[in-house]
Amino acid sequence: MFSTSSFAAHSATTPLSPLQIARREVGPLDVQIDIEYCGICHTDLHVAKNDWGRSVYPIVPGHEIVGRVRAVGAKVKRFAPGQAVAVGCFVGSCGTCASCADHMEQYCLNGYTLTYGSPSADPGGYTQGGYSKSIVVGEHFVLSLPDGLDPAAAAPLLCAGITSYSPLRHWGIGPGMTVGVIGLGGLGHMGVKLAHAMGAKTVMITTSPAKAADAMRLGANEVLISTDEQAMLAMANQFDFLLNTILVPHDFNTYMGLLKVDGTMCIVGAIGPNAQLNTRPLILGRRNIAGSLVGGIKETQEMLNFCAAHEIVSDIELIPVEQINEAYVRMQNNDVKYRFVIDMATLA
Amino acid sequence: MFSTSSFAAHSATTPLSPLQIARREVGPLDVQIDIEYCGICHTDLHVAKNDWGRSVYPIVPGHEIVGRVRAVGAKVKRFAPGQAVAVGCFVGSCGTCASCADHMEQYCLNGYTLTYGSPSADPGGYTQGGYSKSIVVGEHFVLSLPDGLDPAAAAPLLCAGITSYSPLRHWGIGPGMTVGVIGLGGLGHMGVKLAHAMGAKTVMITTSPAKAADAMRLGANEVLISTDEQAMLAMANQFDFLLNTILVPHDFNTYMGLLKVDGTMCIVGAIGPNAQLNTRPLILGRRNIAGSLVGGIKETQEMLNFCAAHEIVSDIELIPVEQINEAYVRMQNNDVKYRFVIDMATLA
Repeated sequence: MFSTSSFAAHSATTPLSPLQIARREVGPLDVQIDIEYCGICHTDLHVAKNDWGRSVYPIVPGHEIVGRVRAVGAKVKRFAPGQAVAVGCFVGSCGTCASCADHMEQYCLNGYTLTYGSPSADPGGYTQGGYSKSIVVGEHFVLSLPDGLDPAAAAPLLCAGITSYSPLRHWGIGPGMTVGVIGLGGLGHMGVKLAHAMGAKTVMITTSPAKAADAMRLGANEVLISTDEQAMLAMANQFDFLLNTILVPHDFNTYMGLLKVDGTMCIVGAIGPNAQLNTRPLILGRRNIAGSLVGGIKETQEMLNFCAAHEIVSDIELIPVEQINEAYVRMQNNDVKYRFVIDMATLA
Repeated sequence: MFSTSSFAAHSATTPLSPLQIARREVGPLDVQIDIEYCGICHTDLHVAKNDWGRSVYPIVPGHEIVGRVRAVGAKVKRFAPGQAVAVGCFVGSCGTCASCADHMEQYCLNGYTLTYGSPSADPGGYTQGGYSKSIVVGEHFVLSLPDGLDPAAAAPLLCAGITSYSPLRHWGIGPGMTVGVIGLGGLGHMGVKLAHAMGAKTVMITTSPAKAADAMRLGANEVLISTDEQAMLAMANQFDFLLNTILVPHDFNTYMGLLKVDGTMCIVGAIGPNAQLNTRPLILGRRNIAGSLVGGIKETQEMLNFCAAHEIVSDIELIPVEQINEAYVRMQNNDVKYRFVIDMATLA
């Protein structure tokens, strides 16, 4: 198991000491997974640092989990030992509300159980995530990893991938449409690959001309520099959909004029208070601002199958677990192309 | 014609003098209308006061126009002298863009021509509105006023009515849905009547307990006091759609938690900068914020027919034209139930 002591520097007021996180026994509906790879998400850093004030230490982050089944409970039907599997951002939901009934566990009205940091009956009283040798997850929340996907590079599909895929699917992206992906980081680089694979004209929208070449390599048809007022005006009313992956609070009004009548900008990054909202572009073009949160289990499996069919994985930097703190610093400085993944074989 | 001198007090720096506004000759595609009634919209006041900095004086406001055809051009097919007709917020559009082709002239990509204050080939170089004895409008932009609608009380349907109707229709409001109408003014009272007539469970959402009885009379099934935190919490995740008719800048976050997953709040009042947008309720429930602007000509005709079928008109206070300035002051103080309409027979 992974020691959480390396996070102590982030939270001087919270006493942390090295410890082992025990996993629950394998119940009849559970799947025990040997974790091979775990992606590093910005959320991990926020939680490790207690940015949102809700972290309970000790905590093991990690919700981009890929591994192999070690053991299954007596009633598990879909999985068998040795099978390649994956786990994403949540490991429980009520199963009975309208959202769960509609395969949208991520919007469970009674509250889902996050892969780490949610109260649970697990040892220690909270779920613990994927920076670890193993995890025990209820069958419903385990995904099958399709053949042909590199397991390390597939790990970020479980959060960055599905967070981009779900809104693109929900808003019906396909051939004949123009999609803008705003921001080229972990989420944005998946957005470009997926929108392109879905057949849309895909435009990378970034403040950074230095990112243009890489955006084109990832599948963008064009690059639009959002600080270039003339270029932005020339693209007014051109977009069916904007996937906004910027992680920090910002001014949405910069982008709204790019949308066609009835177009939607979907926010998947900057959660919380942002800038003042100017309703003029909304009212004058029946434009929409929406948000979206990861995706349901059924949809996540569809996404993995789609990625296998289209040979899509994340661009990653594979690191040994000892480099986690360095990776956090680099991630904070946007110095990663485009996702760190921990090789769990390096965890003693 | 109406003297604009009474607006001089609103704009001391703009020299105004009493004058007559001439109308253009009746062209082959034009309909000349004797105006009987004209509703008073908040927009009229904003333009009269030059609140948006774009008013060009002299200006005749008024875009909730009801009257009878006096004369028609040689090529006019749908109208004949004596027929009851109506004119709404715009009287021209390009006719060729994607929006116009889709019967959404209000989102014309080349710019519609407003009923008053838009540059035009009309005498004086600008269109002039309905606080007037007559108007000349191209046939495409003239509505037929169905039998059975009181003409004075029907006038506000041309702006307040269609502004509420169009989003309710666009978002598919009907039986089995729960709709909240936020704010009980000219727009809101039409929203309640229309949502109720479309078969939705209709909830008036207001800060003002004093408005509850009137909201129920207008067709609301329930009243929700938005300053009552307990009541608001009890209604969380209950609404399919919110029609937000508040006219002044405000905080949308108050209302977003009321929406179900995939629900939409549509802004039809507060155009321009509002409060900071908190994206949390958007992301955590795939909720949407949208805007909507009046409605297209085809849809406006549908709305008039719907109102005739359901015996819906506006609640109005009919005033002689001499009381316009008093009406403006009362409207600014929200002291009208729910729309002033000018009886144009009182204009000398």
